[in-house]
Amino acid sequence: MKFIIQRDKLVNSIQDVLKAVPSRTTIPILTGIKIVASNEGVTLTGSDSDISIESFIPAEEEGSEIIEIKQPGSIVLQAKFFSEIVKKLPKDTVEIEVGENYLTRISSGKAEFNLNGLDSDEYPHLPQVEEHHVFQIPIDLIKTLIRQTVFAVSTSETRPILTGVNWRLEFGELTCIATDSHRLALRMAKIENDHQESYNVVIPGKSLNELSKILDDTSDLIDIVITENQVLFKAKNLLFFSRLLEGNYPDTSRLIPEESKTEVEVQSKEFLQTIDRASLLAREGRNNVVKLSTLPGGILEVSSNSPEIGKVSEEVQTHHIEGEELKISFSAKYMLDALKALEGTDIKISFTGAMRPFLIRTPQNETILQLILPVRTY
Amino acid sequence: MKFIIQRDKLVNSIQDVLKAVPSRTTIPILTGIKIVASNEGVTLTGSDSDISIESFIPAEEEGSEIIEIKQPGSIVLQAKFFSEIVKKLPKDTVEIEVGENYLTRISSGKAEFNLNGLDSDEYPHLPQVEEHHVFQIPIDLIKTLIRQTVFAVSTSETRPILTGVNWRLEFGELTCIATDSHRLALRMAKIENDHQESYNVVIPGKSLNELSKILDDTSDLIDIVITENQVLFKAKNLLFFSRLLEGNYPDTSRLIPEESKTEVEVQSKEFLQTIDRASLLAREGRNNVVKLSTLPGGILEVSSNSPEIGKVSEEVQTHHIEGEELKISFSAKYMLDALKALEGTDIKISFTGAMRPFLIRTPQNETILQLILPVRTY
Repeated sequence: MKFIIQRDKLVNSIQDVLKAVPSRTTIPILTGIKIVASNEGVTLTGSDSDISIESFIPAEEEGSEIIEIKQPGSIVLQAKFFSEIVKKLPKDTVEIEVGENYLTRISSGKAEFNLNGLDSDEYPHLPQVEEHHVFQIPIDLIKTLIRQTVFAVSTSETRPILTGVNWRLEFGELTCIATDSHRLALRMAKIENDHQESYNVVIPGKSLNELSKILDDTSDLIDIVITENQVLFKAKNLLFFSRLLEGNYPDTSRLIPEESKTEVEVQSKEFLQTIDRASLLAREGRNNVVKLSTLPGGILEVSSNSPEIGKVSEEVQTHHIEGEELKISFSAKYMLDALKALEGTDIKISFTGAMRPFLIRTPQNETILQLILPVRTY
Repeated sequence: MKFIIQRDKLVNSIQDVLKAVPSRTTIPILTGIKIVASNEGVTLTGSDSDISIESFIPAEEEGSEIIEIKQPGSIVLQAKFFSEIVKKLPKDTVEIEVGENYLTRISSGKAEFNLNGLDSDEYPHLPQVEEHHVFQIPIDLIKTLIRQTVFAVSTSETRPILTGVNWRLEFGELTCIATDSHRLALRMAKIENDHQESYNVVIPGKSLNELSKILDDTSDLIDIVITENQVLFKAKNLLFFSRLLEGNYPDTSRLIPEESKTEVEVQSKEFLQTIDRASLLAREGRNNVVKLSTLPGGILEVSSNSPEIGKVSEEVQTHHIEGEELKISFSAKYMLDALKALEGTDIKISFTGAMRPFLIRTPQNETILQLILPVRTY
C-alpha cells in the first residue's frame, strides 16, 4: 500500500472514525484504525464492536485530486499514535507506505515516522446489512430528534433496554422515546417513506450521541437501514453501524396522562433560569429537588431548602395558571434537561396533582413532549 | 451589614479571591469568603493560609456609585455557593443583608437566597506586613518573569525548597531562578529601586501561578513588599499575600557551564515543532527522551525510538552549527517547556559534550537562560 493524501482530509476522516475506537478493549486490534487504499480512494474504519464507523476519502473530488494512489493495499495502525502524528505533520500532504512486516512509513516534509502496523486481515469484519429497505431523514432533523430524547435514557445497566432510545416507524411517522423510569422524552416526526415499512427498535443512547457528533449541520438526507440486530446510517462518504438493543421496550403510552388538573403557561428562558438558581443549593442535598407552588395572580413560586446551607425562593410571573392550586416537588436536573430540549419561547406544563407525572410541552406543538415524575416531599 | 452592589463588580472580585480559597481544608471557615462592608467600600478575602487574597471594591469609582452602603458590617459566606449564586442572579444589582444568627439574605430581582453565614471574627487574620521597604515592577513584566521560570519548579516534596522560585534582588537587578534539579530556568530584570535593598527569598511556585492568573495585562506598577516569611504584592484594589519557603536555596551558579564545545543557532518555532513530533512516540516509553545529532551541512537530526510502537526521525536545517560533532539525548518535555518560555524567532543552544548540561538562550539576550541536563542513553 502506498499513497499520498491531502493532510486535512485525512485528519477529518480520522477524527470521525476515532469516535468508535475504544481506549480499552479485550480485542487489541480494535485500538487500531483500518486503512484500505483502492484506486477509488482510501477507506478508514474504527470499531468498538458495538459501533463501527467507516469513512471514505475519494481519490478525486470535484475534479481535483485528493489522493495519489501509488499502490492499493491495507494496514491497521494504532489509532492514538496515527491520529496524533497526522495532526502534527509539517506539510499539507502525507505519504503513507506499508513495507515489510507491516512496518508503515508516514512522511511529510522532512519528518518521517515508522510505525509497527498490524495485518488488516485480522481486523473484524463490519456487520453485513442488507439494504432492501431504506428510509431517509434530513440530517438536521435527525440531530434534533437525538438531542431532544437521548438525554433521558437510563445510565444504569439495571434495565439495559432503557439505556437506548426506542424508535418506532409506523404509517410514515417516526416516534422516538427515551425514559429512565423517572422522566420521559418523546419526539415524533413525519418521514418520507415510500415502502410504508414499520419498525420498532431500540438504539443505544451512546451510539446516537456519537452519530450526532459526527454529522454536520445540513439538510442533506441520511439513509437509514434497519435489520434485525443492526442499524446503519449512511451519509455522504460515511457509514455508521450500531448494534440494536435486544428485548422489548416497555409500553410507555399509559404513563402519559390524558387529562390535567392544573395548566401553566410560562416564558421558557425565564423559568429555566429560575429553576437553575433554585437548584444551586439543592444540588448538595436531597437529590436536587426543588418545590413549585402556585400563588394567586398567576404567580409560580420556585423554592428549595438545604438546612445546612440555606434556602432560596423566587417568584415567576406566568402567562396564566388554570385549574387547581398545586404544590409539587421534582428534580431540578430533570426539569432543566426537559426545558433545554424544548424549542420555542413559551412552554406549557400540565399537572394532574402533586403525586402524578406531569407534562411539559411547547404550546401548539404536538410532536414533542417531556414527562417528569414528581418527588414525594409533603 | 447591608449593601446594594453592582453585580459584575462583585462577580469579578469573587473570582479573584476564590483563587485562594481551598476546596478542602482542616480549617472549615477557610472554605468561606470574608465580606467586610465599610463606608468606603466592600472588601472580600479568601485564604488557604499559604496564600491570602484581598480584593477591595470602592463604593464610588470615577464619580459613579458602585455600592450603596446601608449598614457597615461583616460576614463569612461559603465560597462555593456564594460565587455560584452571585453569578446566576437575574439582575444587574445584588442586595446583601446580614440578619440574626448570621443568616444572610442575597437578593436580586425576585430571586432571594438565605445563606447560613459564619461569624467573621472567627476568620483568621491576614499576615501583618510592615511596609517599610517597597519595590515596584510593571505588571506585564512580573507576569513574564513568572511565566519564564515557574514551570521549572519541582513538583516533588522531596526537597520542598525546590517547589519555589528563588527571587534575588541585588544592585537593582532581580534574578528569578527555578530548578527541579533536572533543568533550570533563569530570568533577570532591572528594577527601579530607590532603597537599593537586597533580598534573597523563595516564593512557592503555586503562589506565583495564582498571582499571574489574577493580574491583568497592563504596564501599571505592582508594589512588592518582602518580609522575613511573607511576600505581599499590591496592585490597584488588590492585595496578594504569600508565605515564603523556609531554607536556603541551592547555589545554582556552578551548574551553568561557562564554555561550550558545540553551538547551534536554529529557528525557534520550527525546532519546537520538530521536538514536539519526535516526542509523540517517546511519551509512551522511556521518560519522553529524544535524541539529537549534528549532521554535516548545518543539519540537526531529531529522532526517537519506541521499539513496540515505532520510530521517528526528522532533519532540521539550522542557521549554523559550530564546534564538535554531537549526539545527545534529553527529555522532550523539558526542551518544549524551555522553548515555549523563550521569546524571539531564533534560539541558540550551547552544548559542552553529551554528558554535560546545555544552555538554551535567545541570541543577543543575556537576561534569560534555560538549562537542561541530558539523559544518558549511549
